[in-house]
Amino acid sequence: MQVIEEVLSRIVPSPEEEARLREVEKELIAKIDAEASRHDRRLYARLLGSASRGTWLRHQKDLDVFVFFPEEYSKQEMERIITRIAERVLRQVEKRYAEHPYVRGVFMGYDVEVVPCYAIPEPKYLKSAVDRTPFHNDYVRKRISGKENEVRLLKQFLKGIGCYGAEARVEGFSGYLCELLVIKFGSFLHVLQAAKQWKRGEVLSLRGDVDVKAVRRKFSSPLVFIDPVDENRNVAAALSLQKFSEFVHASKEFLEEPKLEFFFPRERQVRREEIEELLWRRGTHLLALSFPTPEVVEDILYPQLRKARRFFEALLREGEFGVVGSTFHVGKRSYLFFELSSAEIPAVRLHLGPKVNSLHEPRFLRKYAQAGNVLSRPFIIGDRWAVYLRRRHTRAEELLGDFIAEGRLRERGVPSHIARALEAGGEVLSGDACLVEEALPSLAEYLDPRFPWER
Amino acid sequence: MQVIEEVLSRIVPSPEEEARLREVEKELIAKIDAEASRHDRRLYARLLGSASRGTWLRHQKDLDVFVFFPEEYSKQEMERIITRIAERVLRQVEKRYAEHPYVRGVFMGYDVEVVPCYAIPEPKYLKSAVDRTPFHNDYVRKRISGKENEVRLLKQFLKGIGCYGAEARVEGFSGYLCELLVIKFGSFLHVLQAAKQWKRGEVLSLRGDVDVKAVRRKFSSPLVFIDPVDENRNVAAALSLQKFSEFVHASKEFLEEPKLEFFFPRERQVRREEIEELLWRRGTHLLALSFPTPEVVEDILYPQLRKARRFFEALLREGEFGVVGSTFHVGKRSYLFFELSSAEIPAVRLHLGPKVNSLHEPRFLRKYAQAGNVLSRPFIIGDRWAVYLRRRHTRAEELLGDFIAEGRLRERGVPSHIARALEAGGEVLSGDACLVEEALPSLAEYLDPRFPWER
Repeated sequence: MQVIEEVLSRIVPSPEEEARLREVEKELIAKIDAEASRHDRRLYARLLGSASRGTWLRHQKDLDVFVFFPEEYSKQEMERIITRIAERVLRQVEKRYAEHPYVRGVFMGYDVEVVPCYAIPEPKYLKSAVDRTPFHNDYVRKRISGKENEVRLLKQFLKGIGCYGAEARVEGFSGYLCELLVIKFGSFLHVLQAAKQWKRGEVLSLRGDVDVKAVRRKFSSPLVFIDPVDENRNVAAALSLQKFSEFVHASKEFLEEPKLEFFFPRERQVRREEIEELLWRRGTHLLALSFPTPEVVEDILYPQLRKARRFFEALLREGEFGVVGSTFHVGKRSYLFFELSSAEIPAVRLHLGPKVNSLHEPRFLRKYAQAGNVLSRPFIIGDRWAVYLRRRHTRAEELLGDFIAEGRLRERGVPSHIARALEAGGEVLSGDACLVEEALPSLAEYLDPRFPWER
Repeated sequence: MQVIEEVLSRIVPSPEEEARLREVEKELIAKIDAEASRHDRRLYARLLGSASRGTWLRHQKDLDVFVFFPEEYSKQEMERIITRIAERVLRQVEKRYAEHPYVRGVFMGYDVEVVPCYAIPEPKYLKSAVDRTPFHNDYVRKRISGKENEVRLLKQFLKGIGCYGAEARVEGFSGYLCELLVIKFGSFLHVLQAAKQWKRGEVLSLRGDVDVKAVRRKFSSPLVFIDPVDENRNVAAALSLQKFSEFVHASKEFLEEPKLEFFFPRERQVRREEIEELLWRRGTHLLALSFPTPEVVEDILYPQLRKARRFFEALLREGEFGVVGSTFHVGKRSYLFFELSSAEIPAVRLHLGPKVNSLHEPRFLRKYAQAGNVLSRPFIIGDRWAVYLRRRHTRAEELLGDFIAEGRLRERGVPSHIARALEAGGEVLSGDACLVEEALPSLAEYLDPRFPWER
């Protein structure tokens, strides 16, 4: 297929790139090994990940080095040791924490991650998720030889359609999952031919005997790929229903009409006037919460943004504003956008009270005989008391503004980092003020969604 | 109690009024008897109703004359004969139909109803509801003597608080129910003392042994008063929950603070500016359907108005307009009023389609690739297709206007007489145009409800 030839010519590393990588690898491992054995002769380093498996994409300069420790080491000791090693071998060192601490730095122009793990004989003895990685590496290396470019095609395809990466920002397909899919189906095109028929609840495995019903009971994700290294793990656990569906649809579309745009989509050009036009045609009102982007890893930031978006959507709905939809944008500042039926709602709301002639009647009648927020006297509807009250917030902008001004956002349910950022530098934007230059692409994607290959 | 003395001085007929009534009664019955026996010697007339029982209110000049027929007569024959009789005895004769045909006319300044019924020995043989009336009359007459003024007080109280009359316009207490309540509890004040403790599902009877649970299973109305003449009938069947609750509350309030206003409420004075002020404070938008008042009896008109109100409320809600509430007014023209959150809603609406990769996907994608009402291309939400569509009606006024213009209202669910009136002379009013002079009292009552004794 011509498209595939063209893609390969763009994504397969040159022999020079590969030679350089191996050179850097050799030097890096040697240095880390040397440093490691100064601490303990039993420690040793290995390159894992796509560079080790030969499935990295051209110009991708990432090296994952795992340092193996005997099982008696504590996490704290391991962290201390790899930090020391990294500080002696790498430049621009920074510590990172996921489930497990690790260290990042730069070596001869390559981005390096140094990850400590336990040297265990079998996956069943693992103490932490990273201990599985060496086994993944062995499994893939033994089976992927000759199919590296099929993996590269699949990775680039997923990148192009916005579904590559198991990190929280994307919620898509991990590199390891790509490799397993190619091992399972044999080639990039065969993966797509299978995928175009997938339904939510698809179960895949590299062993023969799978009890699909039992697997679905155990894993609720849209796609289950049983880890050949650990049958209690779903390799596709991080994949969202959204990205699963987008991949299924993209596979079908690509097979019907293969285009380079699936791998290399055009960037969407967005002008402010377009957004204004879209909003005008929809007849809605835009509202935004803006705040300095919290300085935390994306795997923490993105889930918090999604939760915050749901939280404020619920808050607006509780205030009886009509929320058409919402989205967010992460840039220098972050933005939670809410599309509303209208910026303002009526002051009046009907408040239903206790039954006529019930225990709570006297309190209700006393309270609303003279409350400051009444718009009528109490009256009867059917067999219940009712009263028209004046809403506290008739403008959505003021509802959000007051909520933030009242503080204690964390206690009231806003995720921690978003709460802190809102308290430190939160702003409510309304109408045209929402059309901040850096956020226009996210707004366009929300108001007028386009598949990347159709831009 | 001073209030009660004052009320009695206003509502008890003078001896002259009573003497005059008996004189008119005698002459009327004699004339009708004479005319009736020209048709068949077995026919005879009797005065029934409050005039007969001595419980009518001062200046109320209504006489109910029942003409008794042997059981072999058909309804058609009875109707023909009483029409002939009425035409010879009364002036301004008009035929009316309820469950049963009857004739109205005027005699010596009194409004007379002539109702045909069967002469049956016992209520269990009744063929129509009117056959029960003679038994009601006998039952009450035997027991009410000396308590007529207690009945008058109760009737006037119910009139004052807007709960008197079992007709569909009021859905309140019938005169017969008032008489039974006085028989049951002994006096006007004792009725109120009992009523202030009533709860929905109250069961009353003049016989000792009542299985309350069985009765409630049989009758679902808020108050059940088992007819002493027919245990399968609930005398309070026509009483709405609203009027039941209002009476319970009024009883309690009156007993706490007896005031003449319960019997003779002030008329509510409504100025246009007040309504404008109320609407401004509520921040809502008023919409009305106006049409010539159908020329049908109130017992048909009012249920149809209520049903039409519900119908159009549902229509507006279906069109996604925020309906705060609604009311109606009957005058020269009739009006259905709807209070809306806003006159206009956004054009955009999210339309959810089939699942990705499902049977219906191709049709959905084809349809919305080029439909005239799309505001976006189809896109994916989770595992479903979606598209933003342009709403047909963004202005409530236009939604109602188009609905009426499209015709066939009857078939589409609008009650018959309202449908015809709307088709003949329906009009949609919006905003200030709704503040029609004749309807202001109903609007005031809806926007700022007041108990009659608190005006």
